[in-house]
Formats: sequence, structure tokens, C-alpha cells
Amino acid sequence: MVDKNEQEIQLLEEELMIKAITEDNMEELRNQLLELHPYDQAKFFSKLSKVERTQIYHYFSPEEMALIFENIEIDETEYEEFLSEMHPSFVATMLSSMYADDAVDLLNELDKEQVASYLTIMEDGAAREIKDLLHYEEYTAGSIMTTEYIAIKEYQTVRSAMQILKAEAPRAESIYYVYVIDEDKRLAGVISLRDLIVTEDDTFISEIMYDRVMSVSVSEDQEEVARKMKDYNFLALPVVDFQNHLLGIITVDDIIDVMAEEASDDYSKLAGVSDMDGIDKGPLAAAKKRLPWLVILLFLGMLTASIIGRFEATLDQVAILAVFIPLIAGMAGNTGTQALAVAVRGIATGDVDKESRAKLILREAGTGVITGTSCGFLVIMVVYVWKGDIYLGILVGISILITLIVATLAGALVPLLMHKLNIDPAVASGPFITTINDLISILIYFGLATAFMHYLVQ
Amino acid sequence: MVDKNEQEIQLLEEELMIKAITEDNMEELRNQLLELHPYDQAKFFSKLSKVERTQIYHYFSPEEMALIFENIEIDETEYEEFLSEMHPSFVATMLSSMYADDAVDLLNELDKEQVASYLTIMEDGAAREIKDLLHYEEYTAGSIMTTEYIAIKEYQTVRSAMQILKAEAPRAESIYYVYVIDEDKRLAGVISLRDLIVTEDDTFISEIMYDRVMSVSVSEDQEEVARKMKDYNFLALPVVDFQNHLLGIITVDDIIDVMAEEASDDYSKLAGVSDMDGIDKGPLAAAKKRLPWLVILLFLGMLTASIIGRFEATLDQVAILAVFIPLIAGMAGNTGTQALAVAVRGIATGDVDKESRAKLILREAGTGVITGTSCGFLVIMVVYVWKGDIYLGILVGISILITLIVATLAGALVPLLMHKLNIDPAVASGPFITTINDLISILIYFGLATAFMHYLVQ
Repeated sequence: MVDKNEQEIQLLEEELMIKAITEDNMEELRNQLLELHPYDQAKFFSKLSKVERTQIYHYFSPEEMALIFENIEIDETEYEEFLSEMHPSFVATMLSSMYADDAVDLLNELDKEQVASYLTIMEDGAAREIKDLLHYEEYTAGSIMTTEYIAIKEYQTVRSAMQILKAEAPRAESIYYVYVIDEDKRLAGVISLRDLIVTEDDTFISEIMYDRVMSVSVSEDQEEVARKMKDYNFLALPVVDFQNHLLGIITVDDIIDVMAEEASDDYSKLAGVSDMDGIDKGPLAAAKKRLPWLVILLFLGMLTASIIGRFEATLDQVAILAVFIPLIAGMAGNTGTQALAVAVRGIATGDVDKESRAKLILREAGTGVITGTSCGFLVIMVVYVWKGDIYLGILVGISILITLIVATLAGALVPLLMHKLNIDPAVASGPFITTINDLISILIYFGLATAFMHYLVQ
Repeated sequence: MVDKNEQEIQLLEEELMIKAITEDNMEELRNQLLELHPYDQAKFFSKLSKVERTQIYHYFSPEEMALIFENIEIDETEYEEFLSEMHPSFVATMLSSMYADDAVDLLNELDKEQVASYLTIMEDGAAREIKDLLHYEEYTAGSIMTTEYIAIKEYQTVRSAMQILKAEAPRAESIYYVYVIDEDKRLAGVISLRDLIVTEDDTFISEIMYDRVMSVSVSEDQEEVARKMKDYNFLALPVVDFQNHLLGIITVDDIIDVMAEEASDDYSKLAGVSDMDGIDKGPLAAAKKRLPWLVILLFLGMLTASIIGRFEATLDQVAILAVFIPLIAGMAGNTGTQALAVAVRGIATGDVDKESRAKLILREAGTGVITGTSCGFLVIMVVYVWKGDIYLGILVGISILITLIVATLAGALVPLLMHKLNIDPAVASGPFITTINDLISILIYFGLATAFMHYLVQ
């Protein structure tokens, strides 16, 4: 109920704002739009037509547009389109007003030439800050940190720290932790705003700061940063170089975005979609993303077909063998996907390391034996009851047993191997392991059938 | 390098603490352990033996243990074990000292009788607070909120607000937002600590508060809460009942846990593992989690086998048909998993709603036509070159075309249907849709083969 109302109010407000744009009523539009949370401003802005957007650029300052672009969710081509509609110097001022990390995110969507041209006309200080951040490799702590933190010295008092904090609050991305640095800019401690406001004004920072401050290295993987933030419940983490110099901070809101991105990435890879295609894209875009995988899998499937082709003599003699092909191949794929997911997840969370690798393999082998034996027995009984042929039952049952052991192991081994070769294990998707396991299972099934042929044709 | 050192230091510290326990050196142990971040304290504690833990209960106060249990990551049986080792009144005091939401999380791991007995000996106020929170259904905003927030009135000044804040800071879970309520405890506004500290002391709250405060309903799904927190970059969100009374707040650290949990849940469901088995569990535990799915899929596979059985006459005449069974079934499974992942993800992120449902189905149909045509052509050519039989090529190619369209549609339709029936669409796992699509594809393939038999046996 509440939600329904909320939605209706939002729609009404949007209509009013569109009306204000059409009627060229700048004051009304500014009143309405600036009342909204920046995320909602950005959502509204990204829905507008080109003509309407142009009016927005006239009504709002670069500083106000900065807030919108810090919160907007659009794709690469839209970034280029929107920015090309504004005057370059307007864009430059807007970029200087954005938090450095958000400006860097935006610039990463543009091509190098454009970035260079904006940086040239930008105010020097802001341009340097952004240039430094643009250097860091994607997916590292450096690439998501911001340089707008608050730093103090340990010989200061709480009073002077609060003064610095008040002065820098409008500009700093997070004011809830204040970092203590020494003369060389080395990170020496941290103190939370919570502690600052409950402490006497004359206390020295050195007396109350926490000196076992947790930090991340600038080259650390962003997933590792997310893990630390999650485990320790921080709102921000300082980023340092290898000599412990404070370079920037990573705030929790950016980590939430990292987590959502990584989760969606792992999920789509498990399903064999290299990059999740949003449902707003057309079928052509979707097909383009899925076809590469499908074609690879098609050729793997052809390989499986050619293996069955080699057993044509066996098939000709005992045509009923064909009946159980999808069952055996399917079970191999299913158990492989299960083992794969556990291994990929274990590697991602850091639970699987060098020491525990052997343990995981043993465990998966054990799991394969248990599930294989259970399913194998079940199959023997069902096939015997159904077809009245105990030999066929035993053949299919034993094939399932061996297949499940091998397929479970393969599901765990492939990601482990990839991880060792420094390939992202998540690339070994469910469909990939399923198709590999199809192939293995067919080899096992027809191999066994050919070897014990005389029992089947009697 | 830094990380290596960090790990070594941690190991050394742990050894020292174990030594202190063995030597019954309480002071040394307290000095060492209390220096650590509560998360590391909890990690150390959870590794100890029963004898060592007992000593910890003697050395540390319930308040200190509360901090450890707020951060501990153990499973149900360990919760029961650890708590049973402590004196009940010690547990009760510990529970009262914990943040209410963490205490509730802990109590949810115990059986009802135990919970009741602890609540009986607990101090009245804390017990009531916890009882209230225990009522809320799992996975709702109510179940993850805490009641330790700071509320003020709009006629107060910044000075008096800061006084309240300083007084309540040691107890409140988040002090970075202060909520403004009216006489009836209705949520009227919000103000951030950032704004409070930069504003003149004599300013009235009503002048600076933000009155379009975003809140969530107490019965809202926790995933929806996470989405709002992510979109709007909040550090905390207020929770209200349907009359807008302020009931509690949800902090960003709890939302991070929710996101990690939901991501791991979706991922494991896509792989057909009902609940991700951690790699620390043995093969029996793993097999127990995976077998239910495997047995269901086994029977579905039997159904597929029985369908092929019905086409035995066809197979006897053209044994080569069997060769392409895994290829066709495999492609159906792969494309179905892709479509499924896109649909499940779309539903989870809220991108797929009533209006866009038809759009999604149309889009998937279109995608199926494009991928089906591409793969179909490819197959006709490959089979023709390989087997020299154009009719066989056309049969397999057209089967792939139809299969890919139907399987893609099925992959999207199944989760949509489940969502409509209020079943979690993530339950439709990859292996499930794969097996269903195996069945459909076999029907299409053998149906076509039987219908056009005279072309194949000529």
C-alpha cells in the first residue's frame, strides 16, 4: 500500500517536472528536481529526450549536474551522447565538482582522446588528482578509491581535529573516520567521528587513536577489499602503498556496488552468459552475447557425437543403449555443475587455498562415490523393473556410478586448475562443464557397453 | 608482501594467546585479545578447544563476550554447544549487552525452549526488545532491524540534539543519522551527523532536517531493502509500520551480509545445490545436500529415456540418429540455462515486472530464433560435410532450430511462472531446466525423425 502510493507520487512529480520543462518554467523545475534525492534526480534525467536534456543543462549549474552524474546508471554510449551535448568547459567544471572516484568511473566510459581533452581544460588540481587515479588497474583497490579523505596529525587535540573536520566536511566523501598520518604521510592510526564527539576537547589524538589500523594495499583485488569491509563492518577502509603511505579511502557505498557487480558476474558466468544481458536490450544484443558460448558448446557437442559414431557397431547390435544416453549425460552434467559451483564459490571466498586444495579434491571424490552409489543402485532397480533385463540395469547403473565420480571430480578440478593457471575460475561455466561431462560420460557408457557386449546381446 | 607479514604476525599473536591460556596467564591474554578487532577476537575464539573456551569465559566479562558473539561466524550446532558451556545467567547478561539485532540472530539459531529460558532470566527491558524483534518473519526488514537508533524532536536545537547524540553514542548502533519523530513517534525527518556538526548550535532541527525521508516498511523483503540502500548510498534506513511509526533502523553492515547471503543463495540454486555446502564439511554432508536434486533429476532423466524408448522402432531403422542425441539435448540445456539466468536475475533486481513480462518473453523468442537459425545452419553444414547425408543434416539442423527456440522460451517462462505463483524463481535451477529441456528436445528430434523417416532410410 505504502509502496503503491510512493510510486504514484513519483509518477505525478515526474509529470509535473516534464510539464515545467515543456513550459520553460525553470523555477518550478528547479524547485521540484532539487527536492529529490540525487539518485532520483539521475533516474529522472536519464529518461529525458535530447531536447529536454538540453534544457536541463541550461537550468542547472555544473555542480548540480555533478550530483546527477555521480548517481546516474547509464551505459557507455549514453555517457558519450550526454557529454557531447554539453559544452566542454561545462563538462570540465562538472568533473572537477564530482568526487574523484566517481569522475574516474565516468571517464573510464569514454575513449582516451575525449578524456585527454577534458583533462586539458580542467582546473589543474582536480585534473592531477583524476589523472593519478586513472593509472590504477581495473578491479584493484586503487581503481575504486577516492582521495577525498580527512587526515590529521597525532599531536593535535580533539578540538583542532573537529575544526578540520567541520571545514572539510562539505568536500570529504566520508567524514565518519579520520585518519592519523605522520610527517611522511604514513598511516599511523584511525579515529571514528563517534569517538571524537564523545571525547573531551583537550584530549590529544595520540591518546585516543586506534593504532592497529586495518588498511588495504593499492594493488589489492577489489573482491578482497569487499571481504575485509564485510568481515570487519567498516564504513571506509584506507588504501596505502607498499611503504604504508596513505593514498586514499574506499567507502562502503562503493563496496556495495562492487559486491553487486561481482555477484551478477559470477552468476551470469555460471549460466554461460559472458556478460549478463539486461532485459532492456533487444534480442539481437542478447543473441550476440550468448552465441559465442553456444557455438563453442556446439562443437564440443559434435565431438561427443563423433564419439558415439565410433560405437555405431555397438549401437546397431543393441539399439536400446541409445535410450539411456540423455539420462547418463544429464546426470554427469548436473553433478558436475554442483561440484563446480562449490569449488568456484570456495575459491572466490578464499576458503579454498593451497593447503585445502587436496582436501577439496578428496572430499569431492568421496561425495561422488556416495552420490554415485546411491543413484547407481536406484537405476539398476528401476531399469530392471522397467525393462526386465538385469544386465542392462547393471550396465546403466555402473555407468552412472563411474560417471558421477568422474564428473564430480571434473567439476571440482577444472576451476582449481584454472585458478592455478591464473584464469578466473568462474569462466568454467555450468554449460561448459556440462558439455565436457557429456563427453566423458558417453565414453564411459559406450566403453563399458562394448566391453561387456556379450552379456547384452545374449 | 604486506599480506604475508600480516598473516605471520597474526599467527604469532595467536600462538602467544594460546600460550597465555595454557599458562593460565589471564592478564597477558586479556591484553593481547582485547587489542584485536572484535572480528579477529571472534575468529580466534571459534578455533579454541572446549577446555580453552572455558577459560575464556572465566577471564572475560559478559559484555566482552557480547562483542565476540556479535562478530562470530559459526553454525547452529556450535552456537548450542558454546552457549551450553556458559552459565545461563552469564548468557543472559551477554545477550542484553549485544545489539538487539545480533542477539536476535543468535537466538534464532537456538530451539524455542532455550530461547524462552534465556529470556526469562534476562533483564526486563532488553528481553522485551528482543521478544518484539523475534516476532518478525525471516527475510523481512523487521527481522534484520535494530531498535538502537537515535531519535529527536523537530523543536529541538542542534545543541540539544548533539547532547542526546553524545549521551546515546555508546549504545546506538549507528549515530551517523539522527531521526526526527513527532509526538506520536511518527517519522518526520532525518538529519545526518555531518549536517549537525557543520550547523550553528542554535539552529532548530526543523530548519535543517530533510523531511522527504526514505523509509522501508517493516514487512518489506530484505532484498528490496538492500536495493534501496545500494541505489541511494545510505548508511542506515529507518523501518516504519503502515502508519509511519518509527520501529527501528537497518544499518549498512547488515545489508552487506544480506547481499552476500542472497548472492551465494542464488548462485548455489542455479547450480542445483539447495544450500551451498561449505568446503569444511565432509563428503557425507555434501552428498546429503546434493542427492535430493540428483534423485529428482534422475527420475526426470528416466522420463526422457522412456520417451526415446517409444521411438525404438525409429532407432532400429536409423541407428545413426542416436549419435546426435547428446548434441541436441545439450544445446537445449545450455540455451535454457542462459535464458533462465537472465530471467531470474531480472526478477531479482526488479527489472522484470508485470508490464515488462510480455516484453521479456518476446525478446527471448527473438533471441531463440536468431541463435537457433545460426546454430541450425552451422549444424546442417557440419553434418553434411561429415556424414555426406544432406537429409540427416537438415533433420539435425531443423531440430536444433526448433529446440533452441522452445528451450530459450522455456528457460524464461519457467521462472516467470514460478514468480507468478509466488515461488522463488531461483528454485528453477540450471540442472532442472537442463533436464526439462533434454526431454523437450528429444521429443522434437525423434518426432521430426519419425515424421520424415522415408527421407532418412532411402
